Amino acid sequence: MSKKIAILTSGGDSPGMNSAISALVKAALNSGFEPYLILEGYLGILNKNIILVSEFPYNGISSFGGTAIGSTRFPEFKDEEIQKKAAKILTDMGISSLIVIGGDGTYKGGYKLHLQGIKVIALPGTIDNDIQFTDYTIGFDSALNTIVESVDKLRDTANSHRRCFVVEVMGRHCPDLALYSAIATGSEIVITNTNRLSAQEVSKIVLEQFKKGKPSVIITVLEYVLPNLKEFAAQIEKITNITTRAFEVGHIQRGGRPSAFDRILATKMAMKAIELIDEGKSGLAIGYLDGKIQAHDITKVVSVPVERTNELAQKINKINQN
Amino acid sequence: MSKKIAILTSGGDSPGMNSAISALVKAALNSGFEPYLILEGYLGILNKNIILVSEFPYNGISSFGGTAIGSTRFPEFKDEEIQKKAAKILTDMGISSLIVIGGDGTYKGGYKLHLQGIKVIALPGTIDNDIQFTDYTIGFDSALNTIVESVDKLRDTANSHRRCFVVEVMGRHCPDLALYSAIATGSEIVITNTNRLSAQEVSKIVLEQFKKGKPSVIITVLEYVLPNLKEFAAQIEKITNITTRAFEVGHIQRGGRPSAFDRILATKMAMKAIELIDEGKSGLAIGYLDGKIQAHDITKVVSVPVERTNELAQKINKINQN
Amino acid sequence: MSKKIAILTSGGDSPGMNSAISALVKAALNSGFEPYLILEGYLGILNKNIILVSEFPYNGISSFGGTAIGSTRFPEFKDEEIQKKAAKILTDMGISSLIVIGGDGTYKGGYKLHLQGIKVIALPGTIDNDIQFTDYTIGFDSALNTIVESVDKLRDTANSHRRCFVVEVMGRHCPDLALYSAIATGSEIVITNTNRLSAQEVSKIVLEQFKKGKPSVIITVLEYVLPNLKEFAAQIEKITNITTRAFEVGHIQRGGRPSAFDRILATKMAMKAIELIDEGKSGLAIGYLDGKIQAHDITKVVSVPVERTNELAQKINKINQN
Amino acid sequence: MSKKIAILTSGGDSPGMNSAISALVKAALNSGFEPYLILEGYLGILNKNIILVSEFPYNGISSFGGTAIGSTRFPEFKDEEIQKKAAKILTDMGISSLIVIGGDGTYKGGYKLHLQGIKVIALPGTIDNDIQFTDYTIGFDSALNTIVESVDKLRDTANSHRRCFVVEVMGRHCPDLALYSAIATGSEIVITNTNRLSAQEVSKIVLEQFKKGKPSVIITVLEYVLPNLKEFAAQIEKITNITTRAFEVGHIQRGGRPSAFDRILATKMAMKAIELIDEGKSGLAIGYLDGKIQAHDITKVVSVPVERTNELAQKINKINQN
Repeated sequence: MSKKIAILTSGGDSPGMNSAISALVKAALNSGFEPYLILEGYLGILNKNIILVSEFPYNGISSFGGTAIGSTRFPEFKDEEIQKKAAKILTDMGISSLIVIGGDGTYKGGYKLHLQGIKVIALPGTIDNDIQFTDYTIGFDSALNTIVESVDKLRDTANSHRRCFVVEVMGRHCPDLALYSAIATGSEIVITNTNRLSAQEVSKIVLEQFKKGKPSVIITVLEYVLPNLKEFAAQIEKITNITTRAFEVGHIQRGGRPSAFDRILATKMAMKAIELIDEGKSGLAIGYLDGKIQAHDITKVVSVPVERTNELAQKINKINQN
Repeated sequence: MSKKIAILTSGGDSPGMNSAISALVKAALNSGFEPYLILEGYLGILNKNIILVSEFPYNGISSFGGTAIGSTRFPEFKDEEIQKKAAKILTDMGISSLIVIGGDGTYKGGYKLHLQGIKVIALPGTIDNDIQFTDYTIGFDSALNTIVESVDKLRDTANSHRRCFVVEVMGRHCPDLALYSAIATGSEIVITNTNRLSAQEVSKIVLEQFKKGKPSVIITVLEYVLPNLKEFAAQIEKITNITTRAFEVGHIQRGGRPSAFDRILATKMAMKAIELIDEGKSGLAIGYLDGKIQAHDITKVVSVPVERTNELAQKINKINQN
Repeated sequence: MSKKIAILTSGGDSPGMNSAISALVKAALNSGFEPYLILEGYLGILNKNIILVSEFPYNGISSFGGTAIGSTRFPEFKDEEIQKKAAKILTDMGISSLIVIGGDGTYKGGYKLHLQGIKVIALPGTIDNDIQFTDYTIGFDSALNTIVESVDKLRDTANSHRRCFVVEVMGRHCPDLALYSAIATGSEIVITNTNRLSAQEVSKIVLEQFKKGKPSVIITVLEYVLPNLKEFAAQIEKITNITTRAFEVGHIQRGGRPSAFDRILATKMAMKAIELIDEGKSGLAIGYLDGKIQAHDITKVVSVPVERTNELAQKINKINQN
Repeated sequence: MSKKIAILTSGGDSPGMNSAISALVKAALNSGFEPYLILEGYLGILNKNIILVSEFPYNGISSFGGTAIGSTRFPEFKDEEIQKKAAKILTDMGISSLIVIGGDGTYKGGYKLHLQGIKVIALPGTIDNDIQFTDYTIGFDSALNTIVESVDKLRDTANSHRRCFVVEVMGRHCPDLALYSAIATGSEIVITNTNRLSAQEVSKIVLEQFKKGKPSVIITVLEYVLPNLKEFAAQIEKITNITTRAFEVGHIQRGGRPSAFDRILATKMAMKAIELIDEGKSGLAIGYLDGKIQAHDITKVVSVPVERTNELAQKINKINQN
């Protein structure tokens, strides 16, 4: 009698989710599981949108962006009755284990099914890097590379015309995409939720940078920090008299082929998840911490929001203004 | 006695300008010219910002984005006195020939120097493809590829979540970037200055497309056509109840390594320009028309604005909605 | 009664074949045809490996490399009996029209079916650019970009170490990939089937180039011209005492996402093909000549091999050695 | 009195070396050092090819491949007299500290100068990941991405034609590039120096994989393991009757823009190096271990060669054959 395992993705998609799905399927088959794919996230359980992997063209998806099995918002899943119904549908199909890939909300949903008796392991699939007990989430590195490629292009035109660019990146309340893209692009100024600079303060630095001989200045900004990106650019232009443009990296951060790093991270995490399921574990979230793939209780992982000190932002600003 | 020739770029930068500069230098040296680089466009002449090529690291620049010799707005160049002054500076330095790379405004400036006795040849360097008597401008193909790579990424996330994206591309008043990127990305709807569709009209098509089974819809829009991109996306979302996001490709279109096509186009045009200078020609603009590198009078090229019929936009919409 | 049309790809695959398939399907549907896909080329007809497009996930393929409907070598198709059998299978299924995408061999196969009463239009799908009456084949531009990206990377390491690279590119007997990639990469020396240089001759130029101050030298070579690439590099190293490495761009030239140019070319050609089928035309090959999409008799197109004069190779060598 | 510090790169170049140089310069300036660049590695010290950073266009180099300050083989540096001479040259110029970027050989050279009284810190710059006490070397991630992009392209054409590819990657005696690219590309078979498979063994697996329905098979091979890559491919083709091609990723692995990860790693390591110099430390090598930037004695780092168990190779083969 073969052991049935199901896989779903939920929340915002991220590059590498497909690598995780592909590796989960392969590792599950390798360990004698019969893998199922749930289409459209938690809603897919309720809709019995659950298919045997052999009916789905999973081969080759590992290098594609997005999630091939879809992801839908389903806030109703907070209702315990719906959780029970979902667990019953899985149990009735003989599916005793579930791997969920996503962010915070996905983890909470997975934990609820764990409470309902399903064996659940969670993988961190989000570009925002806002999950505890992991140094990297699946998708973060790919999104970083997309930002870096975009800013490299902006530098070309900024240098040609001696301009300033204000660049807004994603991350919700986690500044990692802003901080690490600022490091990777040599961005002269980085503005995050804990490192808020006014247009006046920024303008002063911009003028100093041009005075020092820099042919362009890049200001990296975490989303939601500035009320209006174009307006902020206009203010800097007005104060400094240096042409300043706004660029929102936007949803291209969520798409594109996963980077090598994300594919490897997703695969290693997937292999660990199947191992844990095989050992009868449940209620755990996989992370990459201290250079090792580890597992922690989901409850612990979702208990506190990710917070970063302001130290790195200030260090970057100091270094990159040289 | 060696013949001196100068090169400048002016107006908005475009990928491939550096390939043109590099090829002009090489072809000039090959034909026995002594090439000079003018930094910062027409303003650079007035500022005597003119350097011998051997003092400038031009080697290797051909694969870089932007323009290594800079480009500055200089509206004062419309003044005939300033034109005379510029011509005199060049003549005093023994520079009898000038190659200018840029768009419409650059061409007009070049023509004025031609009237002042400098031998001038113009190359079309702009991503907008808005120059007469050439099928392609230098930079257009690279910008197209940047748009296509961006929209491919948006498709990934749009397909995962069954979403709509409204994508704004550059082009000023020329719809070519919008039309050709719509073809290359299979964009279901394209909106240009001659093919204006209301949010109502677009929403009707969006709903039909999802009904037909499309997992996402991309609406490509030429810049300046919609007063507010995010507002337009919000309207479509409100009418269709399908999540709809806005994405402005923005200034990354102006940067990045030039595509193979742009490098080749730039090189061929550069070789033709040096040939013409060598034959004593002046007042000509290089184009790639009917599959051949050709030259036309600058006056003819700048006399009428580029206009496109609406036929192609409608054809794309019809085909891509299948 | 709906008109049935079939599509196949044959011969070596090329980036953009999928764009052509996708556009053919959309344009066919738009003109009221019922489109079928033949899997695995001409062999697929004999194997009745022919499926209605709605049973195939063609949506989204337009941005993928390779050919989603497969391509198999099938030399037996030269047999007239097999051609008759193939035509009968199509006719029996009610399929009266066929679009074939591929190179020379594909064209000849298509012409044979045209003689058997099937309405056939051919599209040039090959990276080699070795088809008459078209300036560009579908896949040529993508392959060029792959070569250019590779050589840009080689330049980085060559410049760091002051080295020489001998780079072999594809093209069979057509030097276009070699010539145009040499232009786009500023390759100092290009060797083709009509521009054969000995290791002695090349070494002399290499030494001159380093003497001139070039930090690296790239020698671009058309495939099949040198008996042994690594041996040739070793000879140059021995003569010049400059470290010289060989790099074969190889099969990555055949894969990868199609460039914007190839997608647009494929789409325009597909639209023209469906138009011609709709007008009852047959036995024609689509080309992009003199800046326009055109059609010529297949027999005319395959009658003479593509030949290039040596002029361009010599011009490139002269210019790029400056 | 300002403290003078010098920077050099040595050994094979790797993407991210320029990011390290750029970050070292910025961090050095920020800590009040006067940074110098040594051109062409250890040979550059002897040649007094040492320039003040303000005379070198370091700005912007951080996103370029290769090393802007050059790297030359200089085996004579093993001679203690030459080491003394080099230390004296640096001391005479007032340069008391030196940061060296490179691999094993670079480290050994740096250690020798440390013994001569220069304060030396070493950064791991190599694509091979063959340095002890660091999980990642600068350049490894970029090289991985280059391999992955190449294999993705090979998959396109392999799937179209149902083919096999044997892909050789770099790494000298360290299998990490082979192992991790095999994970990232879903390569069905990986062959390393500790996991040697014969053509017979590989062919058996290839046949099984195609029988299972895989449309292509990728065999990843570490360099130096197979005496002749093309011959090996030919053997597999002969045994399996499945078209099998060889592809050597080659020197493109050494070039190209550094990935985000490598830029960030290089920057963090650079910042740590300057900190250590500022604290008067010497004889240390920077690593990224257990998720943290750390420093270890150079002697310890170079004392034992990197070795990997065979476990991972076998695990990959087992998983990816599903």
